Amino acid sequence: MPQQTRPTIADVARAAGVSKGLVSFALNDRPGVAPDTRARILAAAADLGWTPSLSARSLSVGRAFACGLVIGRSPDVIAADPFFPSFIAGLEDEFSVTGQALVLAVATPGRQEAETYRALAADRRVDGVILTDIRASDPRVELVQHLGISAVTLGVPDVASPFTSVSADDGAGIRLVVAHLAALGHRRVAHVAGPEGMLHARRRHHAFRIAADAAGFNTRTVETDFSAAGGARATAALLDSPEPPTAIVYSNDSMAVAGIGVAHQRGLRVPGDLSITGFDDTEIGRYIHPAITTVATDARGWGATTARALLAAIAGDEPRHIDLADPTLTVRASTGPAPTPAA
Amino acid sequence: MPQQTRPTIADVARAAGVSKGLVSFALNDRPGVAPDTRARILAAAADLGWTPSLSARSLSVGRAFACGLVIGRSPDVIAADPFFPSFIAGLEDEFSVTGQALVLAVATPGRQEAETYRALAADRRVDGVILTDIRASDPRVELVQHLGISAVTLGVPDVASPFTSVSADDGAGIRLVVAHLAALGHRRVAHVAGPEGMLHARRRHHAFRIAADAAGFNTRTVETDFSAAGGARATAALLDSPEPPTAIVYSNDSMAVAGIGVAHQRGLRVPGDLSITGFDDTEIGRYIHPAITTVATDARGWGATTARALLAAIAGDEPRHIDLADPTLTVRASTGPAPTPAA
Repeated sequence: MPQQTRPTIADVARAAGVSKGLVSFALNDRPGVAPDTRARILAAAADLGWTPSLSARSLSVGRAFACGLVIGRSPDVIAADPFFPSFIAGLEDEFSVTGQALVLAVATPGRQEAETYRALAADRRVDGVILTDIRASDPRVELVQHLGISAVTLGVPDVASPFTSVSADDGAGIRLVVAHLAALGHRRVAHVAGPEGMLHARRRHHAFRIAADAAGFNTRTVETDFSAAGGARATAALLDSPEPPTAIVYSNDSMAVAGIGVAHQRGLRVPGDLSITGFDDTEIGRYIHPAITTVATDARGWGATTARALLAAIAGDEPRHIDLADPTLTVRASTGPAPTPAA
Repeated sequence: MPQQTRPTIADVARAAGVSKGLVSFALNDRPGVAPDTRARILAAAADLGWTPSLSARSLSVGRAFACGLVIGRSPDVIAADPFFPSFIAGLEDEFSVTGQALVLAVATPGRQEAETYRALAADRRVDGVILTDIRASDPRVELVQHLGISAVTLGVPDVASPFTSVSADDGAGIRLVVAHLAALGHRRVAHVAGPEGMLHARRRHHAFRIAADAAGFNTRTVETDFSAAGGARATAALLDSPEPPTAIVYSNDSMAVAGIGVAHQRGLRVPGDLSITGFDDTEIGRYIHPAITTVATDARGWGATTARALLAAIAGDEPRHIDLADPTLTVRASTGPAPTPAA
């Protein structure tokens, strides 16, 4: 075993020119270490190929040094949505440095999901979990609290939560989209929403309604499961309606890409006949033609921030609400002037 | 804690009408259980909400009851490629039933990757690992062997390996693509390949060269990193050449989608001026226009088979080579007759 050749905390301390205690604080992401000192320590640790000796740490503090992520979407929807791989890469940016393992599970909401959380906690496989796709009256908040492990929620739940939350203002992104379409003269604008049961999809829908009403739009919303198939069906339904929209605001990029496909299949020009916007700024949206106008969020940065917040919670820090920088609008080729004057 | 309300192996045995020993065999995926009996036991376990008591099992057998997956691609490439989410969903199909945790890490090939495997093994975080994207002279095979944990490789390595392999015949898929394009009259056919350092990308490239030569094609290959951006750049380079191809065979769907984007941007019709084929049959390829003709592989089934093979290896079974069913060709709208007679 390579155990004996491993660099120690003392080696890292020497290389970074700081005390062992400070190295330990920095590597465990505790507060009180100046950002540039922390960066120097992490760089020295990475240079030396330092990895924590888990067994030594576990024995001394009774921790698993692992965090859990249970994704509650169907595998097909996960596969079509690049958010999770980017988010997980962001988690790893932090966890790999501090020697935390990431335990991943895919579970259907309901009994199987609850059992998954119970198993993670009862066997002390993880010290904390990340709760994504927070739902209306989400039962996981009480469940995880009851299980006695730490947690961080993505977004603020609508039930009382003892956990730190990390939130992006989805509404701000949608408002930028609506203002952009209003400036282009669109008046009949539809929204292809995610599941109403997911709070962030609901927030995007809510923000759309408020902003679209303020802009005087004639609107319609179709709810989907966030899949490309759902986006295609919703687009077909909207284009079949007596007064089809001149612009469609999609709640993610996968659905917007599918929407462009449906429009092209019907011989419609994008954006000549129909403007289309996405959400998340995924790679594929940049490379299809026309490239998608979309709300740019930072899934990887979100992951890194969430990982730091969870490590702080495990270390005993007080819960707090962390707001990410507001999303921005990336205007590309899928949006243009409305084809006809407003009705 | 919910420990006392948990159903036991005895409860599952009663519900399924079999012995406790058989339940244990089935839940640990040992051979010797008839498929329909195994299905009945798993159904009974799922019905009862059975989860293994990890601590009890760990104490008795000294196992982690966890498996590791270290992905060695850059996060951006992972995010653009739906293979991994589907593959992971397949792993979970098996692991969730047998109470195995999946420990996931993202690590750059090289020192950081080796350290990740060392940490997983040294701390006994996992009983075995899954090696994906097997590379030429892959150092991970010897490393993992040295670390003394079980492993399964995706595809057969080109170095001596003591591990079970699970392989899909990529070449068979490429040969179907070439035959399809030949029947449509194409003669100038290019290949946009993945990294030559990855054996499966190399196998696709090799199969393309052999089949294209046999078909009398005039060929050219551009190597990429498997990303959509790489696919777009390769397409532009091919279309800028003095004798641009009439068909392009891409080594994955993400690059094919990006290739259609580049063609459309230049005012080319797909397939009128350029036929395009993908590999993997991802959801997005079905919903863009034109929908992509692609090689259909079963990433989720591959994950489930790999999980079962790894559990068998951990249980002490002899290594073996498992071949998945040959991939099939899904013909959609992105391929059509060659625009001009063969040169």
